[in-house]
Amino acid sequence: MSQQKGPSQRTTVKRLPQRGNYERETIYQILDEGLVCHVGFIAQGQPFVIPTAYGRVNDTLYIHGSPASRMLRTLQQGIDVCVTVTLLDGLVLARSAFHHSMNYRSVVVFGTATIVEDPEQKLAALKAFTEHVINGRWDEVRSPNRPELAGTLVLSLPLAEASAKLRTGGPVDDETDYQLPIWAGEIPLKLTATTPIPDSRLHPSIKLPKYISSYSRQK
Amino acid sequence: MSQQKGPSQRTTVKRLPQRGNYERETIYQILDEGLVCHVGFIAQGQPFVIPTAYGRVNDTLYIHGSPASRMLRTLQQGIDVCVTVTLLDGLVLARSAFHHSMNYRSVVVFGTATIVEDPEQKLAALKAFTEHVINGRWDEVRSPNRPELAGTLVLSLPLAEASAKLRTGGPVDDETDYQLPIWAGEIPLKLTATTPIPDSRLHPSIKLPKYISSYSRQK
Repeated sequence: MSQQKGPSQRTTVKRLPQRGNYERETIYQILDEGLVCHVGFIAQGQPFVIPTAYGRVNDTLYIHGSPASRMLRTLQQGIDVCVTVTLLDGLVLARSAFHHSMNYRSVVVFGTATIVEDPEQKLAALKAFTEHVINGRWDEVRSPNRPELAGTLVLSLPLAEASAKLRTGGPVDDETDYQLPIWAGEIPLKLTATTPIPDSRLHPSIKLPKYISSYSRQK
Repeated sequence: MSQQKGPSQRTTVKRLPQRGNYERETIYQILDEGLVCHVGFIAQGQPFVIPTAYGRVNDTLYIHGSPASRMLRTLQQGIDVCVTVTLLDGLVLARSAFHHSMNYRSVVVFGTATIVEDPEQKLAALKAFTEHVINGRWDEVRSPNRPELAGTLVLSLPLAEASAKLRTGGPVDDETDYQLPIWAGEIPLKLTATTPIPDSRLHPSIKLPKYISSYSRQK
C-alpha cells in the first residue's frame, strides 16, 4: 500500500521534445509491448474509460473502430482525450501491509484525436494495428478491401504530450520491520502466450507459422 | 480489426439489481481476477485516466492512496468517476486483417466515489486491497499502524452501475476467406507468475510460504 511509487501518484505531463532519447525510448517500448490502451474522454459531462487496441507509427498513436461506436463518434469531434497503457510487472510484498506495492510501467498521453482521412495513412495505420498485435501477420493475411476501409474509422493522437512512469525492484520496508519473520520480495508477472488454438474450420494442411508458435510479448 | 465485438463498442450501462446473478457473478469474477483498474475522472475540464490498485467488498469497490495524490484529491470532492478493469484473454487471428480481434473480459463502473471515514470500514478496505492482491497475506504481515491509517485515503465506489463485456472464441471470417491458405485461430494469453525474488535483506531462515509459491491469478 505504499503510495510513494504507486500508480496513483500524480502524472507530470511534459512535452516529448524537451526530453532525452532515453525517456522517449521508454515511452515507445511501453506502448509497443502493451496490447490494450484505456481511452478516457468526456461525453455529456461524464468521464468514460474504454479499453481498445492501438498501434504506433513514430510519434503517432492510432486507435480505430466502427464509425458507429460511441467512443469514436465522440472523439472525432476533436475533444480532449487521455490514453493510458499499463504493463504490470510484479507484485511487491513488503513486511507491512502498508508498504505492499506493484511493479509496473505506464504511459499517459494527453491530446486531441483527429480522423485519418488520407487513404495511404489510413492503410499504414491499419498495418500498424495488425503488426502491433503480431509481427509478420500483415503480409500473410488478406488486406482490407474498399468496404472494410470505408467501414473503419481511424483516429490519430500525437505523442507530443506523453509521460512514462514506472516502479521496479523489491519492497522498501520501515527499518524496524526488517527484523520481522515475514517473507518479503517480488512475484514477477508476465503476460504469457499459451498453445495456439486452431480455428475449427482450419484446413489440416495449413501449418502453424513460426511467428505464431514463437509468439512472445516481451522483447 | 473486427469492430462488432471489439472493446471499443458502446458500453451499455445498466443497474446491477435489474440483472440476474449470472451477470453479477461475471462482474465480480472479472474484478476479483484483475489487479489494476483504470480510473477516469475530469479535472479542470480535462479527462484523466490513472492506473491504480483496488479491492472489492461485496458491492463496493475501494481505491486508495496518499491524500496528496491529485487523483484522490480530485475524487474526494465527490465527482463522477468511471473505473474500468480489463483482462486480456487472447489474440484472435483471422484470415483477413479486418477481422482480427482480441478476446477479453472487462467491467466498466460509473459512479461517485466517497471518502471512507469509519475506521472499521477503512481497515476492512485495506485488508481487501492486500487480500485482493494475494490471498492469505493480510494475516501474516504487520497491520497498518495509526500514522499509516491516517496517511492513507480510501475511497469507495458502489458497484450499482456496473457492466461487463467480453469476447470469447475463435475468429469469424468472411465466408469467401475460409478457402485462403492462412493459419487462423487464437493465441491464448494469461498473466503468469514466475519465480518469486526474495528481498535482498530477507533472512535466509525465512521460507517461502505456500500461498506465494503457488500464486496464480486465474481461479
